[in-house]
Amino acid sequence: MRIAVINETSAADRNADIMAALEGRGHTIINAGMVKNGAKPELTYIHTGLMSAILLNLGRVDFVVGGCGTGQGFLNSAMQYPGVFCGHIVNSLDAWLFAQINGGNCISLALNQGYGWAADVNLRFIFDRLFSVESGAGYPAHRKESQQQSRQLLADISRMAHQPLAGIVAALPDSVLRPVLEYPGFRELLDVPAIQDGELRSAFQQRM
Amino acid sequence: MRIAVINETSAADRNADIMAALEGRGHTIINAGMVKNGAKPELTYIHTGLMSAILLNLGRVDFVVGGCGTGQGFLNSAMQYPGVFCGHIVNSLDAWLFAQINGGNCISLALNQGYGWAADVNLRFIFDRLFSVESGAGYPAHRKESQQQSRQLLADISRMAHQPLAGIVAALPDSVLRPVLEYPGFRELLDVPAIQDGELRSAFQQRM
Amino acid sequence: MRIAVINETSAADRNADIMAALEGRGHTIINAGMVKNGAKPELTYIHTGLMSAILLNLGRVDFVVGGCGTGQGFLNSAMQYPGVFCGHIVNSLDAWLFAQINGGNCISLALNQGYGWAADVNLRFIFDRLFSVESGAGYPAHRKESQQQSRQLLADISRMAHQPLAGIVAALPDSVLRPVLEYPGFRELLDVPAIQDGELRSAFQQRM
Amino acid sequence: MRIAVINETSAADRNADIMAALEGRGHTIINAGMVKNGAKPELTYIHTGLMSAILLNLGRVDFVVGGCGTGQGFLNSAMQYPGVFCGHIVNSLDAWLFAQINGGNCISLALNQGYGWAADVNLRFIFDRLFSVESGAGYPAHRKESQQQSRQLLADISRMAHQPLAGIVAALPDSVLRPVLEYPGFRELLDVPAIQDGELRSAFQQRM
Repeated sequence: MRIAVINETSAADRNADIMAALEGRGHTIINAGMVKNGAKPELTYIHTGLMSAILLNLGRVDFVVGGCGTGQGFLNSAMQYPGVFCGHIVNSLDAWLFAQINGGNCISLALNQGYGWAADVNLRFIFDRLFSVESGAGYPAHRKESQQQSRQLLADISRMAHQPLAGIVAALPDSVLRPVLEYPGFRELLDVPAIQDGELRSAFQQRM
Repeated sequence: MRIAVINETSAADRNADIMAALEGRGHTIINAGMVKNGAKPELTYIHTGLMSAILLNLGRVDFVVGGCGTGQGFLNSAMQYPGVFCGHIVNSLDAWLFAQINGGNCISLALNQGYGWAADVNLRFIFDRLFSVESGAGYPAHRKESQQQSRQLLADISRMAHQPLAGIVAALPDSVLRPVLEYPGFRELLDVPAIQDGELRSAFQQRM
Repeated sequence: MRIAVINETSAADRNADIMAALEGRGHTIINAGMVKNGAKPELTYIHTGLMSAILLNLGRVDFVVGGCGTGQGFLNSAMQYPGVFCGHIVNSLDAWLFAQINGGNCISLALNQGYGWAADVNLRFIFDRLFSVESGAGYPAHRKESQQQSRQLLADISRMAHQPLAGIVAALPDSVLRPVLEYPGFRELLDVPAIQDGELRSAFQQRM
Repeated sequence: MRIAVINETSAADRNADIMAALEGRGHTIINAGMVKNGAKPELTYIHTGLMSAILLNLGRVDFVVGGCGTGQGFLNSAMQYPGVFCGHIVNSLDAWLFAQINGGNCISLALNQGYGWAADVNLRFIFDRLFSVESGAGYPAHRKESQQQSRQLLADISRMAHQPLAGIVAALPDSVLRPVLEYPGFRELLDVPAIQDGELRSAFQQRM
């Protein structure tokens, strides 16, 4: 699986813990956000939410690990966009249930609140459980089908309730879009020429 | 403040606890969802998320208290729509920080996972803190302005990223919209003739 | 390892979850307490704490898994006796740290408070971590020696601060000791004739 | 109420948070332990547990707020002595239940594990609930009497199971007792000449 780790500024010092906790699992990890609190250029959860949505919608990654101080800001930001299904994950049981029941493609971690000593171990425990079960397997097992139906409906609603990403990219103000497009490494990850949807490719091209 | 409590089926047995915990706070509480697990007609988080979004967007309520087994499903459902800013709230510190930092209009409670003995007291503690601080006051105080800017940007993005509610109402499949519109009491709450936005009023009228 | 599971009355309905979560780990599990809330004869945490201390001090088991509604009562009861070192364990991180840092021989689980849906899975996660590390291995690794010294000192203090178990058995009122000695199966587990310490053997014999 | 705050070395940097969270509650607060990680002279949980027991048994304070990295070490140390009833308190619900059900005289806080941003607020919430209810009031109310009986039995057992404090003071090795007696301010707090129990007064005098 291709997993993007995307940290905003206030909890960017946790980035090393996240990267370490994801190591050795056989996944391709893309460290797409900040790695140090307050470094420049700076990304807030407004930007990391958008980055997550873009990478997921373009299929550049399969999963995003994000977060912020409490986890609520990134969650609310990433969830503004179509096709993002994000869990607020504080411990390994949250992770294990979210993966099986909700089968989302994004998690938001609380990286300052409650983030004390041994929180790096807690991250490892979270990823152990998140990736040890089949996404969308259903829990408990006999509710698999009804949970699957809910997820399918949610995916349909997400498309109906949102503008197409091309329209969003066209509409977003510079203060939101530019820090994302100009963030070191993001343009390469985005790979605009390779975007197959012509409207979306063109939307990005016009903002660059 | 007008607060809607909206429970889906799997955790509807917690409804009485939520209602009791909200009592005596001087708010108008509207019990808009289910009150008993598995009763008929049944609402899943797909429906309660939509109900929340409709009531908030029409200004019928100021705040929604929702949730589901883990809190993740309702959260992901309600957040599909414009103008919904929802926190995943497990304890009183979550509530206190979310109110001040994120200033959202919705919370999603975990009503089965971790919901054991004295969880009704925990709900009371959550509401004590949620409603004891000024929404959007900022925390810590010196970050008030930057947090306010993020919230404002998020509200703008929400409008840009979503279809207008009228379009969503028109597009949603019957399996999503009908159980909501036909849920006992919801039509009165919705009060279609009183909707000022003509397009939105008309969208509802056409689905009834 | 020989592990005793010892439930008091208020959370005895969780016994089946604990037993299931301990299964298949290669340990010998002795279900020494209650298995159903309110059954007769009834054990309170006063009794289960004493049972734990007796079994540990006699070497009948290597480890005790106890608990009560919040976990605090059993903890305070078991810790009255010499040679009991008990952690209050709520999640898998607690378990992992306690095993390595404190290297105790007893845990107290919160079996009503916070014990909701999927709490049985949480128990499994707790035991996964509790038994996956070397007891007393030290965490972090470089503090191994100083943590070991603290544990050794604590064991010494425990002996100095307490009466010998024989004296305690002799002194305890009937209301505390008799329900323990008469609890179905406990006498066999205790196996008085096999107690090597003559004073202790005699103390038990005189109370029977 | 007279409350002693007693920090060991690994979490002594949290002392200022604890003191601030206890402020303005009308209690007399005695800051008897360390205030800075690694300062000299250094106290481990071995020492702070003993200090707690001495101050409680002599009636110098009514309540002790202690803790360590995870809370388990101080808990196990303080609980070695007679007359100490200690809760492991992580959040405000723990505090509220422990005060009413267990009515103890000591709490052990987790001051590194899970101690992240806003943990100072969490401490305030803990003390808000710990001191807002009557100690030993019983919860739920109808279990008041049976909980009271358990507490009374536990107090009796504590006396029977332990050596008298005088004997403990006499027996403890220098490495445990001396750092306590020599800790700045502790001797004044101890006030040996004022100890009414002649045996205990004499035990302290002989170790000084």
